[in-house]
Amino acid sequence: MPVLDMPALDFWFDFASTYSYPATMRIAPLAATAGVTVQFRPFLLGPIFKAQGWDSSPFNLYPAKGRYMWRDLERLCADLSLPFCQPETFPQPSLLAARAALVGLAESWGEEFCRAVFRAEFGEAGRIDDSATIARLLTALGAAPDDVLAKAKSEPIKTRLRDETQAAQQLGIFGAPTFVTADGELFWGNDRLEQALAWAARAGKKC
Amino acid sequence: MPVLDMPALDFWFDFASTYSYPATMRIAPLAATAGVTVQFRPFLLGPIFKAQGWDSSPFNLYPAKGRYMWRDLERLCADLSLPFCQPETFPQPSLLAARAALVGLAESWGEEFCRAVFRAEFGEAGRIDDSATIARLLTALGAAPDDVLAKAKSEPIKTRLRDETQAAQQLGIFGAPTFVTADGELFWGNDRLEQALAWAARAGKKC
Repeated sequence: MPVLDMPALDFWFDFASTYSYPATMRIAPLAATAGVTVQFRPFLLGPIFKAQGWDSSPFNLYPAKGRYMWRDLERLCADLSLPFCQPETFPQPSLLAARAALVGLAESWGEEFCRAVFRAEFGEAGRIDDSATIARLLTALGAAPDDVLAKAKSEPIKTRLRDETQAAQQLGIFGAPTFVTADGELFWGNDRLEQALAWAARAGKKC
Repeated sequence: MPVLDMPALDFWFDFASTYSYPATMRIAPLAATAGVTVQFRPFLLGPIFKAQGWDSSPFNLYPAKGRYMWRDLERLCADLSLPFCQPETFPQPSLLAARAALVGLAESWGEEFCRAVFRAEFGEAGRIDDSATIARLLTALGAAPDDVLAKAKSEPIKTRLRDETQAAQQLGIFGAPTFVTADGELFWGNDRLEQALAWAARAGKKC
């Protein structure tokens, strides 16, 4: 949640996105150090990719790029001491996880849930499109799985995710993770996180 | 040129590639500090993009990505105190510059020529597919333009560039800049330069 008078950064990500994994694991401590409040904004890349004429991830459509990405992510996770295990299915449908995250982000357990989903997916090669996985993660966080899964399938949450995805597209977002500052600067990719935080912190000081 | 007993890194780039500009300007001092010798390997991305079904740069094919790239490059150049001026034509045919660079890289002025080409293209919005531009850059470096341009159009240089482009494709290179270590690790993008140098330096120590 944004804190008044602190510089703000919107963190747009998709649970299907590989580089959103290290970004999600890194952002909270880095933002605290930079004095920036971060708003987690899960959205769906699928409709944005479809509008570009892609029916899958570019990492599947362009095999050389895909092979590179998996190796790059493996090296990156090793450097960050993050668990890494390539899931059998990629990309995974991220609709359920995104909806559940929207429920949690309006409560207290949202950010921790996002980290748990990414850890399950890319750290343990789990299925995040499976209600049983999501329920297990919710239970571990002390949230009530049945209630949350019911809310996740409710109209207000469905609409919210559609609106967020549309907002991402209108901002010019074309991939994930993307960081957007209050003054409208986009920074795309896990490796732009530090630069985005520095920009947000500087912009906050000017006002 | 590689120095014996020093760790080595191959630096693959295309003169048409925007992010190859900051990489080319940054690599020499960073490599010296890391104790790594770098081999400049200009190649052509065009045939590799064509093999992926693209008839232009992905930054033109995907407008949101293109708009972002130009803004990102502008910010990046500002951070690095590099001149930046967006050329009217993008991508520019890089065949002539790449062939002239291959001539220079077998002589003493190759790396300085590469930097001069990128500065003319993305720092001054110049045309690098124009013989007059290339001749002007060569003169400034003390090379003989007529001789170099004649050599650049010779069969051995034409063949060399085709072979290098094929070698890049066989290595799994799909974009530029790409850094390749002696033990076969690929690092794609200007923002992977430091990581590539660190990997090369470490790999060198193991042997």
